[in-house]
Amino acid sequence: MPEKSSGKPRFVLTTRRIEALADGIFAISMTLLVLSLTLPDMLETKLSLSQLLAEQWPKFFNYALSFVLLAIFWIVHHQQFHVIRRTDRIHVWINIGILMFVALMPFSTDVAGDYSGETLAELVFDANIMILGLLFLLNWWYACWRHRLVDLDLDRETIVKGIRRSCVTPGVAAVSMALAFFIPHWGLVVYILVPVIQLLPWFRDID
Amino acid sequence: MPEKSSGKPRFVLTTRRIEALADGIFAISMTLLVLSLTLPDMLETKLSLSQLLAEQWPKFFNYALSFVLLAIFWIVHHQQFHVIRRTDRIHVWINIGILMFVALMPFSTDVAGDYSGETLAELVFDANIMILGLLFLLNWWYACWRHRLVDLDLDRETIVKGIRRSCVTPGVAAVSMALAFFIPHWGLVVYILVPVIQLLPWFRDID
Amino acid sequence: MPEKSSGKPRFVLTTRRIEALADGIFAISMTLLVLSLTLPDMLETKLSLSQLLAEQWPKFFNYALSFVLLAIFWIVHHQQFHVIRRTDRIHVWINIGILMFVALMPFSTDVAGDYSGETLAELVFDANIMILGLLFLLNWWYACWRHRLVDLDLDRETIVKGIRRSCVTPGVAAVSMALAFFIPHWGLVVYILVPVIQLLPWFRDID
Amino acid sequence: MPEKSSGKPRFVLTTRRIEALADGIFAISMTLLVLSLTLPDMLETKLSLSQLLAEQWPKFFNYALSFVLLAIFWIVHHQQFHVIRRTDRIHVWINIGILMFVALMPFSTDVAGDYSGETLAELVFDANIMILGLLFLLNWWYACWRHRLVDLDLDRETIVKGIRRSCVTPGVAAVSMALAFFIPHWGLVVYILVPVIQLLPWFRDID
Repeated sequence: MPEKSSGKPRFVLTTRRIEALADGIFAISMTLLVLSLTLPDMLETKLSLSQLLAEQWPKFFNYALSFVLLAIFWIVHHQQFHVIRRTDRIHVWINIGILMFVALMPFSTDVAGDYSGETLAELVFDANIMILGLLFLLNWWYACWRHRLVDLDLDRETIVKGIRRSCVTPGVAAVSMALAFFIPHWGLVVYILVPVIQLLPWFRDID
Repeated sequence: MPEKSSGKPRFVLTTRRIEALADGIFAISMTLLVLSLTLPDMLETKLSLSQLLAEQWPKFFNYALSFVLLAIFWIVHHQQFHVIRRTDRIHVWINIGILMFVALMPFSTDVAGDYSGETLAELVFDANIMILGLLFLLNWWYACWRHRLVDLDLDRETIVKGIRRSCVTPGVAAVSMALAFFIPHWGLVVYILVPVIQLLPWFRDID
Repeated sequence: MPEKSSGKPRFVLTTRRIEALADGIFAISMTLLVLSLTLPDMLETKLSLSQLLAEQWPKFFNYALSFVLLAIFWIVHHQQFHVIRRTDRIHVWINIGILMFVALMPFSTDVAGDYSGETLAELVFDANIMILGLLFLLNWWYACWRHRLVDLDLDRETIVKGIRRSCVTPGVAAVSMALAFFIPHWGLVVYILVPVIQLLPWFRDID
Repeated sequence: MPEKSSGKPRFVLTTRRIEALADGIFAISMTLLVLSLTLPDMLETKLSLSQLLAEQWPKFFNYALSFVLLAIFWIVHHQQFHVIRRTDRIHVWINIGILMFVALMPFSTDVAGDYSGETLAELVFDANIMILGLLFLLNWWYACWRHRLVDLDLDRETIVKGIRRSCVTPGVAAVSMALAFFIPHWGLVVYILVPVIQLLPWFRDID
C-alpha cells in the first residue's frame, strides 16, 4: 500500500480498491446466477426429476452463457486495469455503472430463462450485455484518451486493439437483438461468436 | 503484511482486514439488491412480460438508487480509510455498525419497492440511509478528533471538508423523510441531489 | 507474496489465503442474514406494513444479534491469525469447521426467528454459537500448544488471555441453553453479555 | 503489484486476480449451500419443529458433504496456484470452467437433497464432482506439462504426486455413480473416503 505512506494525505481514490470491489461483485454475480436454476415447483408439479431437468435445459444453457460472458467481461476488466494507473471521479462512476449492470445479470438471465422464446425477454438480456459492452468501451476510451489514466508510454497499438476488442461484444449483442425478432428461441446462441471472434488475429490480444 | 513481522506479537486490529471485510459486505449487499427484482409471480399472474416489466419500474429505480447510494458510501469509506492509519475498539464497533446497515440495504430497498407510495415504507428506507450517513460522520469525527487515528500532519481543511461532505447524505435523507409525508411516491427522487451537491465547490473533495 | 518466490516449490498452505477465504465467508454469511428479513407474505396477508414490521421485531433483534456475534467471531479470527504464522493439515481442517458453522448462521438465525419462543429453535441457535466458540478455542489452543504455529517468543500472557477470552462465548451459550428451557422468548438476550464480559479487565485484550 | 510497474504495458493476465476471483466464488458458493437448508414450508405443514429438523437430516449431511468437498477443492486450488507462476489463455478458460462448476454446487446439492434416494439426483451431484475433479486434474497437467506455467526447477515428484492426488476425487465419484444405481440412499456416503485416501502415504502431499 505505497499510496498510504506517501506525503500529505488527501482524499484520493485508488485503482486497488476498485479492483477489489469489482472482483467481489463479479464473483457474487457469477455465483448468484445459479439461483435461477432452483427448482421450487419440484414438489408441486407431477413431473419426474428427469422431466424437470430436461425442461430446465434452456436455463442451463443461459446459466453457462451468462457465466462465460461475465467471465469475458471480468478478463477485460482485468486487462484494462492492468494498464490503468490512476482513476478520477468520472472514471469511478463509469466503473460503478459497469458494476451495476454486472450485478443485474442474474436478473436478466432469469428473465431470459423464464421467458425463453419471447422476443422481449431476449431483448432484456441483449440490452444488459450491450450496455455492459459499451460501458467497457467507454471505460477504455476514457482512460486512454490523451493517456489520461494510463502510462504515457502505453503504445498506440495496445490502445487501438483494446477499442477494437471492446466492439466485439456490443456488435454481437446487436446481431442477437435483431435475431430476437425472428428466431427468439435461438437468438442467444449467437453469443458463442464472442470468444471465437476474439481469437481472430484482428481482435486477439497479445499473449 | 508488515504488521505481521513487527516486534512483539499482541492482540491488535488492523485497518487492512476491516477494509477487506467492508469491501466484501459492500460488494455482496450491492449484488443482493438484484434479488428484489426477481419476478416470482410471473407464471401465476395473467400479465404479459411487458406488463410485468412495466410494473417493476419503481423497483428498477430503487435498485439503481440503492446501488448508487451504496457506491457513494463505499467511496466515502474508501476515502476515510485512505487517511485512517490505526483503529481501536470503539472505531471497530462504529465500523461494524456501518456494515450492519450496509447489509440491511437490500431489505430496506425491498420494503420501499414492494410498498412504493406508502409513507412508512419510504421512512424505513430513509432511516437506513440516515443512520448510515450519521455513522459515517461519526466514523470520520472519531478518527480525526485530536488526530486520534490519523496522521498528525493531516491538515484541518481535509478534516473539515470530510465532516461537511458527510453531512450531505443525512441532510438529504431528512428532506426525503419530510417529503414522504406529502408525496410518498416521489420522496426518494430527492436522493439524486446527493451526488449533485457533492460536486458543488463547497462540498467537493480535492481531485 | 514472498512465499511464491522462496526456494524449491512444494505443496504448502499459507495463512494468507485462509484469511481471504474466511473474510469472504464471514462477509457473505453476515450479509445473507438479511434474507431472513424478507417479507414474502406481505401481499398475501391482510396486515398493514406497520403491523408486518412490528411483527418482525424479534427477527430484527435476531438479525442484529447474529451480525454482532459474527462480527465478534471475525475480530477473534483476526486477532488469532495476527499471531499465527504457519498452518498445517489439522489447523486447516479446524478452520474449515469454523467456516462451516459461520456459513450455517443464516440458517440458525432463520430458525430462531421463525420459531421465536420455541425451546428447540433457541437450542439450534445456541448450539451453533457454542460449537463456533469451542472451535475458536480449539483453533487457538492448537496453534499455541508448544508454540506449534506461532512465534517462539509469543508470551504466555497473550496465550492465556486468548484462552480465557475464548471461553466467554461458549459459557454464555451454555447459560442461554439453560434459559431456553425456562424463558424461551428471552434466552437469546443473554448474548448481550458477550461484549460486556469481554470488556472486563480479566478478559480484555491489550489495546 | 510488481507486474504493474514492469516495463512496457501489455494485455496480460495475472494469477493474482484469478486467485482473488476464485477465493470469492469458492466463498460464495460454500455460503450459498446454506440456502438449501431454508424451511420455507414450515408454516404450511402441520409438522413440529423437531419433526421438520429430523426430516432435514439428509440435507444437513449433504450441506456438510458439499462444504467439505468444496473446501478440499479450494485447498487443491490453493496448492496448485502456489507453484503456478504464469497463466495463458487456455489456462484461464480451464479455470473459468472450474469456477462455473464450483458455482453450480449449491444447485447440485439442492437436487441431491430434495430428491434424496433417487438415482438421477445422485448422478447429478456425482457428475458435478466428477467434472470438477477432472478439470482440476487438467489444470495441473496443463500447467506442469513441459513446465509450461510452473518454475523450471519444479521437481518431478511434486508433479506426479499432484496428478496422483487429483485422481482420488474423480475415482471416488465414479464409485459413487455406480453405487447410485444400487443404494441411492447411501451413494454419497462414499465421499467420506476422499479425505481418508488423501491421507495415505501414496497420495499424501508433503507437509
